[in-house]
Amino acid sequence: MDPQAFMDIATKVTKLKMYPYFDIAHYTLMCMAVREDLPANQPTGTQPFYRRHPLSTWVSSMLVCFAGSIIANILLGEPAITPFKDHRSVLTATAVWYLVFYSPFDMVYKLAKLLPFKMVICALKEVQRASKVHTAVNHTAKIYPNAYLIIVLIGTIKGSGSYLMKNFERLVRGVWVPGSNEILTPTFATKACLVASLVFLMERLNYIQAPHPLIYFGVVIFFVYFKLSALLLGIHDPFAPFENLFCAIFMGGMWEALRRAVVPEKRPTDERNDMPVKSKEDKKKD
Amino acid sequence: MDPQAFMDIATKVTKLKMYPYFDIAHYTLMCMAVREDLPANQPTGTQPFYRRHPLSTWVSSMLVCFAGSIIANILLGEPAITPFKDHRSVLTATAVWYLVFYSPFDMVYKLAKLLPFKMVICALKEVQRASKVHTAVNHTAKIYPNAYLIIVLIGTIKGSGSYLMKNFERLVRGVWVPGSNEILTPTFATKACLVASLVFLMERLNYIQAPHPLIYFGVVIFFVYFKLSALLLGIHDPFAPFENLFCAIFMGGMWEALRRAVVPEKRPTDERNDMPVKSKEDKKKD
Amino acid sequence: MDPQAFMDIATKVTKLKMYPYFDIAHYTLMCMAVREDLPANQPTGTQPFYRRHPLSTWVSSMLVCFAGSIIANILLGEPAITPFKDHRSVLTATAVWYLVFYSPFDMVYKLAKLLPFKMVICALKEVQRASKVHTAVNHTAKIYPNAYLIIVLIGTIKGSGSYLMKNFERLVRGVWVPGSNEILTPTFATKACLVASLVFLMERLNYIQAPHPLIYFGVVIFFVYFKLSALLLGIHDPFAPFENLFCAIFMGGMWEALRRAVVPEKRPTDERNDMPVKSKEDKKKD
Repeated sequence: MDPQAFMDIATKVTKLKMYPYFDIAHYTLMCMAVREDLPANQPTGTQPFYRRHPLSTWVSSMLVCFAGSIIANILLGEPAITPFKDHRSVLTATAVWYLVFYSPFDMVYKLAKLLPFKMVICALKEVQRASKVHTAVNHTAKIYPNAYLIIVLIGTIKGSGSYLMKNFERLVRGVWVPGSNEILTPTFATKACLVASLVFLMERLNYIQAPHPLIYFGVVIFFVYFKLSALLLGIHDPFAPFENLFCAIFMGGMWEALRRAVVPEKRPTDERNDMPVKSKEDKKKD
Repeated sequence: MDPQAFMDIATKVTKLKMYPYFDIAHYTLMCMAVREDLPANQPTGTQPFYRRHPLSTWVSSMLVCFAGSIIANILLGEPAITPFKDHRSVLTATAVWYLVFYSPFDMVYKLAKLLPFKMVICALKEVQRASKVHTAVNHTAKIYPNAYLIIVLIGTIKGSGSYLMKNFERLVRGVWVPGSNEILTPTFATKACLVASLVFLMERLNYIQAPHPLIYFGVVIFFVYFKLSALLLGIHDPFAPFENLFCAIFMGGMWEALRRAVVPEKRPTDERNDMPVKSKEDKKKD
Repeated sequence: MDPQAFMDIATKVTKLKMYPYFDIAHYTLMCMAVREDLPANQPTGTQPFYRRHPLSTWVSSMLVCFAGSIIANILLGEPAITPFKDHRSVLTATAVWYLVFYSPFDMVYKLAKLLPFKMVICALKEVQRASKVHTAVNHTAKIYPNAYLIIVLIGTIKGSGSYLMKNFERLVRGVWVPGSNEILTPTFATKACLVASLVFLMERLNYIQAPHPLIYFGVVIFFVYFKLSALLLGIHDPFAPFENLFCAIFMGGMWEALRRAVVPEKRPTDERNDMPVKSKEDKKKD
């Protein structure tokens, strides 16, 4: 491929306006996530949850659509309500919410679930995610120029706020699942946002010497590529092997292996349950 | 009634000072709500909860007494602790808390539950609610002049914050009921505050061309009238029929009816439970 | 003891730098508290929780290490993320977290649990607590000069924030125990911080006419003395008798006693359970 043509595309991607198409893709995926999290089974003869509690689904959807801003604003001491100042975004998100939940014959929801449409929506959404992380890193770097940890944190949160909001968004719908949260089992999206924040921060600090459009375009491709892999090939977390290796070495695994080599292992058969310990399989980080 | 006399009364109502009588009525109802939410049954021979955990009931009571301010402050990025800056209010609320929970022979609580006293307290409280909504709408409109959604939201929250605080106020008392919250099943008070916020906002935008005291007095009468109806006649939600109609038309009901007319309905008897679907009764929003 | 020598020691204690030793002691105790709160039993053959979820334990540990600042910042409307601006503290806390959880052969954790080491760490931590309360009272008094309630509240929260954070720190680890919280059953540390805040406030208002180093040293001794008593003698709450007396007199107990003297008590044997009410034992605040 011609480097100049490539550079031109990269520059164009850098200057893309998020509103309306990319934002709409984001709102669509968020509302669909809320809808898919609703209880699927219900007693025969009753209306589905979203028909009986429209206010609850609307508040839930708005919370996840603007989750990144809300959480970041609370952490940065800015008004949490700021995203609702922008009427255009809220009205767009509300229109999307209405179409996803209450469109005639459920058309919009059913179409958006078809693979070709879903792929397009997901790709658009990943572009928007990259843009959000970039904006967040630059914005935070202006307020806290030397607080690298805060810059990376806010970049990650703006990119994947909806996962962090999950527990509280569920609470609005009367559901409380404390046993699962994003910090306990981070999704790939969160990890990818962390990597992207680090890349953008290193660019600011001049550790990466490449033209800005190239870096930005690289992050976009990285996001879109892995999202489409997840959709098409079911590869959900390409970071997992590295993490497992890291955990096995630095999070105590190395010392345990050393001790096991030195100290003769206690026979597990003396214990109450007579099953021998299957050490190989259980070593994996679940 | 003489229009001039009516106007005079309306003007007087507009200028009413909230402290002390109206505020005390509000604090009394809030502390009573906390007390009534405590578990009624306890093992024989043990003290009631509020005797064993006075700090918990005090914190709970303060949280609901100042709930509107606390939530609105968090949303607007102002210090959440601001209400506690005003010693006079906190001391008054503390005195009310003490009297409601620990008065000699439980006199205060028992008296306040008698219908005539309760009616007076509720009426005073509704006047205070109207005043709170009005102040909140004006205050927010000064900070965010064009953010109509935020103005209405903050007006509603200041008027009915105690309902939104419920889940967290309960948590302070060691109780967690995630399955119910104000957004899932909004009370009439919240809806009335929403309407009042809209009215005050429209007045600001000059869509309602009436003298201010009249509008304000109208809102006060609306609040007091429906509260007393609820107390005396048990009418809990005059908005319910309109909501049900709205939901039936716009929240998917229309399309479902259309589909049912076109597609022949599946016989519910083929399903596991042999009961035919009772569609009329279940249509109601529960 | 020579008063001049005593005064010299007191002045030195006042000028102690918290970083690194006192801060490290604080971080160590906080990380140990997180680790001890993890489920002790696990299915045979699986890794312990902290081996499988290092991110979760890190976030938990950071939340409790900086709990006082985080909660106080939210209440005062300052950015909640501020503590993470200070890289040196975060890196130190992270190093401590790593050593407590994943040190070779679990050495650090096992050593820190030995009584002599634990006593030293606890003593250092209490000195740090006193310093925190003092800083918080002075800082808040500058922002809200006349809001005594806020000054005392923030002083208490900065000194014992980790207890208030407990419920949310657990949530990060996927555990939710709504039935217990610091407000329901305050620990001695919280009460001691309340007393210390009151003392420092009274000093500011010139109600206590003593040289500052003496007051500060007094608070430090008070904290250290009771912590070591708790460790060595198992005296967990020296305030309990006073509280019980106060509750018995002012929180309804007096009136109940009066009523019991006047009205002849109902025989509890008429009730379903035939046990007579044991009133003496149950009077104790549990």
